[in-house]
Amino acid sequence: MCRWIAYRGQPIALEQYVTAPAHSLIVQSLKALESTGSTNGDGFGLGWYDDQHEDPGLYREVRPAWSDENLRHLCRHIHSRLFFAHVRASTGTPTTRPNCHPFTHGRFMFMHNGQIGNWSLIRRKVEALIPDGLYRARIGTTDSEAVFLAILGMGGDIDPLGATMQTIATLTDIVNSSGAKDPLRFTATLTDGRDLYAFRYANNESANTLYYREVGESLLVVSEPLDMERSYWRPVPPGHVIVARAGQATRLEPFLGERRVAAE
Amino acid sequence: MCRWIAYRGQPIALEQYVTAPAHSLIVQSLKALESTGSTNGDGFGLGWYDDQHEDPGLYREVRPAWSDENLRHLCRHIHSRLFFAHVRASTGTPTTRPNCHPFTHGRFMFMHNGQIGNWSLIRRKVEALIPDGLYRARIGTTDSEAVFLAILGMGGDIDPLGATMQTIATLTDIVNSSGAKDPLRFTATLTDGRDLYAFRYANNESANTLYYREVGESLLVVSEPLDMERSYWRPVPPGHVIVARAGQATRLEPFLGERRVAAE
Amino acid sequence: MCRWIAYRGQPIALEQYVTAPAHSLIVQSLKALESTGSTNGDGFGLGWYDDQHEDPGLYREVRPAWSDENLRHLCRHIHSRLFFAHVRASTGTPTTRPNCHPFTHGRFMFMHNGQIGNWSLIRRKVEALIPDGLYRARIGTTDSEAVFLAILGMGGDIDPLGATMQTIATLTDIVNSSGAKDPLRFTATLTDGRDLYAFRYANNESANTLYYREVGESLLVVSEPLDMERSYWRPVPPGHVIVARAGQATRLEPFLGERRVAAE
Amino acid sequence: MCRWIAYRGQPIALEQYVTAPAHSLIVQSLKALESTGSTNGDGFGLGWYDDQHEDPGLYREVRPAWSDENLRHLCRHIHSRLFFAHVRASTGTPTTRPNCHPFTHGRFMFMHNGQIGNWSLIRRKVEALIPDGLYRARIGTTDSEAVFLAILGMGGDIDPLGATMQTIATLTDIVNSSGAKDPLRFTATLTDGRDLYAFRYANNESANTLYYREVGESLLVVSEPLDMERSYWRPVPPGHVIVARAGQATRLEPFLGERRVAAE
Repeated sequence: MCRWIAYRGQPIALEQYVTAPAHSLIVQSLKALESTGSTNGDGFGLGWYDDQHEDPGLYREVRPAWSDENLRHLCRHIHSRLFFAHVRASTGTPTTRPNCHPFTHGRFMFMHNGQIGNWSLIRRKVEALIPDGLYRARIGTTDSEAVFLAILGMGGDIDPLGATMQTIATLTDIVNSSGAKDPLRFTATLTDGRDLYAFRYANNESANTLYYREVGESLLVVSEPLDMERSYWRPVPPGHVIVARAGQATRLEPFLGERRVAAE
Repeated sequence: MCRWIAYRGQPIALEQYVTAPAHSLIVQSLKALESTGSTNGDGFGLGWYDDQHEDPGLYREVRPAWSDENLRHLCRHIHSRLFFAHVRASTGTPTTRPNCHPFTHGRFMFMHNGQIGNWSLIRRKVEALIPDGLYRARIGTTDSEAVFLAILGMGGDIDPLGATMQTIATLTDIVNSSGAKDPLRFTATLTDGRDLYAFRYANNESANTLYYREVGESLLVVSEPLDMERSYWRPVPPGHVIVARAGQATRLEPFLGERRVAAE
Repeated sequence: MCRWIAYRGQPIALEQYVTAPAHSLIVQSLKALESTGSTNGDGFGLGWYDDQHEDPGLYREVRPAWSDENLRHLCRHIHSRLFFAHVRASTGTPTTRPNCHPFTHGRFMFMHNGQIGNWSLIRRKVEALIPDGLYRARIGTTDSEAVFLAILGMGGDIDPLGATMQTIATLTDIVNSSGAKDPLRFTATLTDGRDLYAFRYANNESANTLYYREVGESLLVVSEPLDMERSYWRPVPPGHVIVARAGQATRLEPFLGERRVAAE
Repeated sequence: MCRWIAYRGQPIALEQYVTAPAHSLIVQSLKALESTGSTNGDGFGLGWYDDQHEDPGLYREVRPAWSDENLRHLCRHIHSRLFFAHVRASTGTPTTRPNCHPFTHGRFMFMHNGQIGNWSLIRRKVEALIPDGLYRARIGTTDSEAVFLAILGMGGDIDPLGATMQTIATLTDIVNSSGAKDPLRFTATLTDGRDLYAFRYANNESANTLYYREVGESLLVVSEPLDMERSYWRPVPPGHVIVARAGQATRLEPFLGERRVAAE
């Protein structure tokens, strides 16, 4: 199972939440390793926005994050007001840079913890959701990248929330009608460099976790709490989305709740 | 432009034609580098058959072949009666292991020097040639891997030559009708571990080169001569295929000659 | 903590003990991961002898073993009568190929689980044990490689057992007189392609484990048992060495037992 | 032969001189490849200073720079007032990250194009120049890293120019008295994050080139001109150093000129 964090707020060094000695993604991943034995050694990635460019910077690598000297340097020296970080546990696709999260396209960035049930069987149907013009941007083979491009193709550049909803609804139908026993799990986050959306959804009762925390004007969203003081972290209920639009208060909204129930 | 060699004959150490100081693929690639400046530093691969298994062994890596210590060791210690080696110059797809040649599936192995004109535009049509059952074996994003799986889907396991002919004919139609200005170039080789086929074809006058050489019962097929004594090497004319079936004399046959002319 | 296996006996495919689904080094490493949380993701290596060459083949890589497609292929297709495999957990030196075990020089091969207490302080003294002629073979920066070259310099090519004893005795003195609190732990194995020696030693009570198992004429030596049926495995007591010379019965001998006691 | 650039001046995106389509280090390296066939595919590195930290950021990688997606991203998104970039052509040491330039220690950064004649023979003598306290910072095996640490040990933190002079004078003596036929070539640059020194020296007539260019208050120093308009670039004579101290005009000074002559 992958782990990720997303940050939006005052510009900070990425290391604060990615590589710092305590309470960072990398350190907590190693602690998770110790307690649960689940490894996140199948590559990692980092994406961040700055004030010079609309499109984010991206650093992805196939080696384990914990031993990557470059990652430590980058997280110490890069500051950002909006960044994603992700450590990967492959669900079957090869460990290559293009298969590492986050994924970017123009000003959009996306990352995902979860899976699309029976991916190898329905992959072609999901890829068919990607319009021709965007299909050339598919440089990897993961389910997550396909979902991201499908969302953009569904109008994600104009209405990210609506397009994601429509894409995941369609995916739910595809997975359910495929007879797959493996669930569709979608704990993911999407941004255009300004607004941030973070989703917790599954087509059954097993949605992967999602938490968030607000300190002043800064928002931190995580797939799993970064430290043991879980009381600091507010869980997002299954079938909900965090909507954090620039200049607006962060709020929770239902996300495809009925669909899931209807599908069962 | 990629470079490759294929060998079939008495079992020999791979190093003889892959990494040895003179007249090997790696050394000749470096010489090509010196004379033409074309680099083959975008990954490489090695595939070989032994007597224990029907399926070949495979070693692919994204670092340049010339500095890979592992490659030198493997080529010194692995012996084979049938092997492929390939150094890659990317035509656009990322440098990942799954994008490196050769490609294998069951007992089949394939590698390619060339390109499919306007790949990013017609990619989806080419991928549609791959049957569902084989599509899950598509772990990379290259045109070459797609062509290989399309050939297998077209009946390549029963009639490799016929299936390749049919696939490349279909591809020619797709490329020609796409309005692509970039040609379809197919200098490739396919084997099932016993029989070996090597193709030289393009949908215009610019087919990439193909040479071969027989010494005793051993056959060496190369995209470009391994040494300067070109007189040793017999060129294959465009629109032809080397047919080297087990227990039969090696022969040249026309390959889609009329189609190419008809298409113009 | 690293894990390793050494095999000598009838030629077998490496996969049997390295990558096979049950009871192999890689799988047991992942199980160890689950139960203890100790990760072995800092590179790995494989060395093997064949009948064509005196010197062993070598494959070392910085990615985690569990996701390396090349490793699976090599272990399936390479057969050997004598091979080493090692998964690395760094004790501080960078994750590079030259820092991965096993180490080879000419016909000799060596690998190690353990550490040399306070390495960064006494490193220069240990490197000074390596003769000039061998120092150029030091292509990495680990303590383990330095010890290997020191053993060879101490006459390891003529009397491997004696040279190892002398080297480790000298190391014990260096570590003890350095005031290091970290111990010298030396669970290691050395071969010249014919005879195999496997050591269990520490300068205190905390020697890393060492086990072995004989089936017919085959010997398997492991840093930790490959499966849960520990009754199959015979532990080596601290301060002992397995001596497995070609054509002789495998036996245990004391190794520097008095020295350790004297040093305390 | 390696190639490098150093920049000091108004903060700019690294891409301007490292990865941009025209006149950048990477592109010119590829052009050099085309014209001379010399390849710089044995790793690369990037180091930069920002206003938050005294120590520089560092990104080093073993893949060729021309196909590294991460490098393009980093150079587009990182801005700096002082940075180094280096593409490596190995003179024998393995291609590992710790062997890639630039090298850093605290606030100091260094990179080098050249070689120390007969390195494998005199390596131990050169390493002996590094004080114990700094020897633990030697994480690679190159001659260049050893020289950098020797300079720091010789008082480089207080008097960088004097310490470099003393170190290279000592090295010249070591190389000359070793009977090495290979020269000592030292085209290198050193900075503490404020002042920058760039050296052109050899112990014979074959010093590698060094050029510079000033535009307004910005200084660009290169091992070889980045574009064909060589008239823009001012060559540094052999046996000279560029001294570019913060707040002072850039000037050329003799560097060990007499020593070289005396040595012949």
